[in-house]
Amino acid sequence: MNYDTQNIFAKILRGEIPAIKAYEDDRTLAFMDIMPQAQGHTLVIPKAQAVTLLDLSADDAAYTIQIVQKVARAIEKALDASGIVLMQLSGETAGQTVPHVHFHLIPSSIHELRKHAAEMGDQEEIKATAEKIKLALEQL
Amino acid sequence: MNYDTQNIFAKILRGEIPAIKAYEDDRTLAFMDIMPQAQGHTLVIPKAQAVTLLDLSADDAAYTIQIVQKVARAIEKALDASGIVLMQLSGETAGQTVPHVHFHLIPSSIHELRKHAAEMGDQEEIKATAEKIKLALEQL
Repeated sequence: MNYDTQNIFAKILRGEIPAIKAYEDDRTLAFMDIMPQAQGHTLVIPKAQAVTLLDLSADDAAYTIQIVQKVARAIEKALDASGIVLMQLSGETAGQTVPHVHFHLIPSSIHELRKHAAEMGDQEEIKATAEKIKLALEQL
Repeated sequence: MNYDTQNIFAKILRGEIPAIKAYEDDRTLAFMDIMPQAQGHTLVIPKAQAVTLLDLSADDAAYTIQIVQKVARAIEKALDASGIVLMQLSGETAGQTVPHVHFHLIPSSIHELRKHAAEMGDQEEIKATAEKIKLALEQL
């Protein structure tokens, strides 16, 4: 699938628009969803250009899921979460809104997610949560 | 987390109860969800004993996500699906019902999933779908 270099996550990766980051290395970035479905809702993306999980190289998929695991463990620790929903939507039909492959980590229940309307979260609260996750990542 | 060797997926892995398989190798198994949320709803599991994604070894996570990619591509091809939801629930709080780590691949929309009640699917139809996915896997 053609990759749109003007998508919002591509802009975040280039530093053209800000994001509240929880983790970054040379191949992946984890940042807070600004319209969180629950406190601690984090997105993990590979830096490689791929629209969906089906487009992503096997190597990048392998690396990214390992970062997903790390960030999930940090969320669990930072927020004392007892359950985490991992969700990854491939294709507009599935509900994908940003055309750069991304993994949602949501410390919530699959049965609760749809009750929340999509709206901007409190940015200061989100920043504070990101700091907790970063600290937990350092202590893993 | 302690692994319960009597969970239903452990029994499927040991061949004690049947499953409609779509793919199997020495480290992973993909089989059809018998209460599908959409036609083609497939589960991909590592054979390693792990309750959640957080418990799974990095190596098994890396391998399993690559099989998830393959099976997703096969579902897309077999069913002419334009969108696939990947969902993985860690912990009862998140909605996990079987305590063996599993990835759901559902060719549907995240906005449609909750409209379906949990009920047994037509087993013959599910078997026919599995055959289509198997064929597509061979042709990837």
